[in-house]
Amino acid sequence: MPQILSQIHKPADLHKLTSAELEQLSKEIREVIIETTSNNGGHLAPNLGVVELTLALHLVFKTPKDKIVWDVGHQSYVHKLLTGRYKEFSTLRRHRGLAGFPKRSESKHDVFNTGHSSTSISAALGFACARDLQKEDSSVIAVIGDGALTGGMALEALNHAGHVQTDLIVVLNDNEKSIADNVGAMSTYLTRIRTDPRYFRNKEEMEDVLKRIPSIGPHVLKVLEKMKDGLKNLMVPGVLFEELGYSYLGPIDGHNLQELRAVLANARRLKGPVLVHVLTKKGKGYGPAESNPSLFHGVGPFDRATGKVHKSEGPPSYTQVFSETLLRLARQDERILAITAAMPDGTGVGAFARNFPSRFIDVGIAEQHAVTMSSAMALQGFKPVVAIYSTFLQRAYDQVFHDACLHKAPVVFAIDRGGMVGDDGETHHGVFDMSYLRHIPELVHMSPKDENELQHMLYTAVEYNGPIAIRYPRGAGVGVSLDKELTLLPIGKGEVLRQGTDVAIIAIGNMVRIAEEAANQLEEQGIRAAVVNARFVKPLDEELILKLARDIGKIITIEEHILAGGFGSAILELFEAKNVDCKVKRIGIPDEFVQHGSISILRETYGLTVDNLARTAREMLDGASLSRKRGPMKIVFPGELR
Amino acid sequence: MPQILSQIHKPADLHKLTSAELEQLSKEIREVIIETTSNNGGHLAPNLGVVELTLALHLVFKTPKDKIVWDVGHQSYVHKLLTGRYKEFSTLRRHRGLAGFPKRSESKHDVFNTGHSSTSISAALGFACARDLQKEDSSVIAVIGDGALTGGMALEALNHAGHVQTDLIVVLNDNEKSIADNVGAMSTYLTRIRTDPRYFRNKEEMEDVLKRIPSIGPHVLKVLEKMKDGLKNLMVPGVLFEELGYSYLGPIDGHNLQELRAVLANARRLKGPVLVHVLTKKGKGYGPAESNPSLFHGVGPFDRATGKVHKSEGPPSYTQVFSETLLRLARQDERILAITAAMPDGTGVGAFARNFPSRFIDVGIAEQHAVTMSSAMALQGFKPVVAIYSTFLQRAYDQVFHDACLHKAPVVFAIDRGGMVGDDGETHHGVFDMSYLRHIPELVHMSPKDENELQHMLYTAVEYNGPIAIRYPRGAGVGVSLDKELTLLPIGKGEVLRQGTDVAIIAIGNMVRIAEEAANQLEEQGIRAAVVNARFVKPLDEELILKLARDIGKIITIEEHILAGGFGSAILELFEAKNVDCKVKRIGIPDEFVQHGSISILRETYGLTVDNLARTAREMLDGASLSRKRGPMKIVFPGELR
Repeated sequence: MPQILSQIHKPADLHKLTSAELEQLSKEIREVIIETTSNNGGHLAPNLGVVELTLALHLVFKTPKDKIVWDVGHQSYVHKLLTGRYKEFSTLRRHRGLAGFPKRSESKHDVFNTGHSSTSISAALGFACARDLQKEDSSVIAVIGDGALTGGMALEALNHAGHVQTDLIVVLNDNEKSIADNVGAMSTYLTRIRTDPRYFRNKEEMEDVLKRIPSIGPHVLKVLEKMKDGLKNLMVPGVLFEELGYSYLGPIDGHNLQELRAVLANARRLKGPVLVHVLTKKGKGYGPAESNPSLFHGVGPFDRATGKVHKSEGPPSYTQVFSETLLRLARQDERILAITAAMPDGTGVGAFARNFPSRFIDVGIAEQHAVTMSSAMALQGFKPVVAIYSTFLQRAYDQVFHDACLHKAPVVFAIDRGGMVGDDGETHHGVFDMSYLRHIPELVHMSPKDENELQHMLYTAVEYNGPIAIRYPRGAGVGVSLDKELTLLPIGKGEVLRQGTDVAIIAIGNMVRIAEEAANQLEEQGIRAAVVNARFVKPLDEELILKLARDIGKIITIEEHILAGGFGSAILELFEAKNVDCKVKRIGIPDEFVQHGSISILRETYGLTVDNLARTAREMLDGASLSRKRGPMKIVFPGELR
Repeated sequence: MPQILSQIHKPADLHKLTSAELEQLSKEIREVIIETTSNNGGHLAPNLGVVELTLALHLVFKTPKDKIVWDVGHQSYVHKLLTGRYKEFSTLRRHRGLAGFPKRSESKHDVFNTGHSSTSISAALGFACARDLQKEDSSVIAVIGDGALTGGMALEALNHAGHVQTDLIVVLNDNEKSIADNVGAMSTYLTRIRTDPRYFRNKEEMEDVLKRIPSIGPHVLKVLEKMKDGLKNLMVPGVLFEELGYSYLGPIDGHNLQELRAVLANARRLKGPVLVHVLTKKGKGYGPAESNPSLFHGVGPFDRATGKVHKSEGPPSYTQVFSETLLRLARQDERILAITAAMPDGTGVGAFARNFPSRFIDVGIAEQHAVTMSSAMALQGFKPVVAIYSTFLQRAYDQVFHDACLHKAPVVFAIDRGGMVGDDGETHHGVFDMSYLRHIPELVHMSPKDENELQHMLYTAVEYNGPIAIRYPRGAGVGVSLDKELTLLPIGKGEVLRQGTDVAIIAIGNMVRIAEEAANQLEEQGIRAAVVNARFVKPLDEELILKLARDIGKIITIEEHILAGGFGSAILELFEAKNVDCKVKRIGIPDEFVQHGSISILRETYGLTVDNLARTAREMLDGASLSRKRGPMKIVFPGELR
């Protein structure tokens, strides 16, 4: 048991500690985080990078009166440990355990829930303006990485806060990384500050120089006089931030607790917006994470002695199959480009990047820009494959609409993590994309039943001449063999996997396998269920679905997705449009945010299981026979198929 | 007929003109634009501001080989006139006439459709990268206003392009306006460049000064030497852009054609990204627009002699009623804040701003930041009313989801322009919000049947303790009298406006009035239609709707909104969830983008009319009797209500 950490029940307890004890505490915190993430998985590297920074913040500021907003929030483990959550820390990311991100419901010290990137300055400015209106006296601090600062909304907020000029501290946690290496002109600028000793000249030295210039002509003097303010700015690094209205402090060694405390205390006293530029090392204190911070950014369980990540035996992941298929297609078709928003590894486009660097674009955490830039390239004859997780594509909803679909631009949206993602929880589940994309005209939306079909869908997508999305889930495929030859799937056509007469199950994506197993179970009970792999959310295979309605009259839909506006709703809409009277039962996620926990627990919770699907089928059939027994019968006159 | 303009059929025709003729052409262009917008309405002030800039661009660059991307696109009239569309210009913004925004389908000189703000640098960078891959030799120019540069995606792209370092010209059209006065630190920075003569010192003068410093000690010399590069940057205005990797040219008088041509020609020769800072005056050349550029930003028909905008007689607009109610509520409840993304006048929060400046926030064109900042303020006990048009709120879909609804933050979304907007066309119709918001957990979504109900809904919204949206249409209310006293509407309860037995019409928002009129028409034909004002898209009034299903069994829904995932779909979902068998017919907009044209023409197109609604009801009833006549009857066994 960590001796000091176990005695820290609230941030104020830190004040009792000596410098030596604080140093010991840093070590203990790193221990606990390494130990816990090696068991539970989690965002190891980002947290190891902010141990001293978080300590310094809690030593200088008094939460919850002072407010710390953690951007993205995956770096909040240290904060959690220092704010009374050490005892529960072993439950991190487990169902009903501590969340991997800040949660207002967990602690009063967590003032803003995060998960998606680049929101912290907006939230902090909101807190600061609220404080001003309420005439309170407190500090508000946004802690944002240099990666998150490439996100448009962070830049909107940076721009606005520089204008508002209220007291606000932006701690720029500069580790030269977003998840992969960072990109963007701002990043280059920060690197210049890091590396160019000229920027470290302090303004005192500059003024000294000006004083020592001997008497010179009046014209020169006048010009120099005019230059003076500008020179001061220039000699202080961070002129860009100064120009935007911020007092710039830095760069500071983010692993030097004394320096951090001193500078943050200084920042606390300054009026107006302050930018504190802190240099940290991702993975600090754990060798494997220091040398491979991208792998240890968010990592599954691993062996802490060797740093080896536990590999799941079994079939390749959807992401891997996507990655390999993309590479294969790209070798044959040089129109294919790959675009990522700061996640080459997570999305699997890294292999493409290594093979075709000139056709690969990492725009940084900038999903909006990624989509619009891709649309323009598509209009010039390229086939951009934009690989973004379902939950992060939410950021680019308007760009998918306004820049891709209005143009009918042949952009391929590779939507990874479509479905529940498990431990990352409510901010990360990809269970909304069918609803937020299905209503956009011109967009084709499909989802493969397995990793083999994913191959064919990707091929189909790059050959299709319009905007098209493929949604596939996190994690391992189902283990089918991969066809050597890729085939074009007919757009808007589903696949009948099993004939049946009693009930038809229409499943989409990873629910198809569950549908097949449920049909097996039903068969043992004498019920003959047809199983259809829908393949297309849009356009629906109207012919097939209408035939099922006519022939069977009882349909169950199943989707790992929110029910409102989702796949099942598309089928209800079809029947309404065609005046078809068919009994439909939808299985999916109800109207609530899905918490964190293993995918299997979550599927149980929402009935996305073989048992529940089979039970639903039986109830549907029972219900029919039941109402046959109970009178009075209500006669409904179905309209005709048209 | 304009003598010169009528002879310009393509940009190349400009090269034949003398300076004097070009000056005459500018005048003719202004004439034509003032004349046309005075008849048709349109974005007058932005276009008057870019006459010389557009001429210069077409004189220096050769479209369509060179590509000009117009940000937002409302300033593309001059471009349209110079690219062969003078003859059709009188059809501007009319149904099947020229669009008010760039349209690829109109001309090969329009390379990217716009409408929403801040997309141009992303698109231009996409074109530039495509050009590089295709090894072509051409220029790509993004023309972006200082207002649009506050949008996050423009900043994402600015940051990325500075990193990519390909040849790209960003023309910053700085008129100190977005639609209203501009905000943001970047804007302050631009103003400093405009007004501080120090920034106009050129670097030659600076170097001259350095040379003239007499011999000084080696330490000083060394420091000065190190300073030199920095000093050069500093003395050139635009150090911020230089730091981001751009060559900065400017500021330039945007109404001096010769200067513009020279600088743009220079920009064309430079390698890497170039930012050309052009100072223009919105409304230039038309007195009323110069003195009130906000009013003449986008304006309805007006009298060109006096500049008086034709007032429609009749009832106040929804926006006005919203504006007055907000003010009234704010007087009684100081928790109420108003937030706008650069549209205080359009959204009607201007009156609030004048009365409660400290409780008003204009964040600039930054919808994402607006929503997240508001959420933080809501969590501190305030009642932020975020007023954003339906189509622009698309930009903040993820923030509504991730920052407002996940937090259950009591933010009021005042969604103006919900429904068809008419002349602005496909990028501006607000016909997707029910679909993109309805599936987000925790969000209440309502829509008033008239301007009186809007009052009560706004009151209800500010009193509600969670995220809540009110959607209301563009234009005049229906002319009902406004209740003096505001009442709280029960959340999730609809209103039966008319009893009936044959068919039930459930309408939402501005379709309620049409439903009532259709019921009148039907009554004359002996059909008794119930009419329900749904009020709530979410939560639905389940009790009432299920009762209608039970009692009447035939329901028609009507909404000025896309059908996929919309209001009618919510009702289909309800019946599925409750195992109710009820005949439903939905009326709304099919799966396509709605073009520009008057709202009445568009409503005819999509059957959002009294006649079509009544016809649908008759067909539904005929269908029933028809199928009674035709056999064989198919018996469907409805499940039970549960």
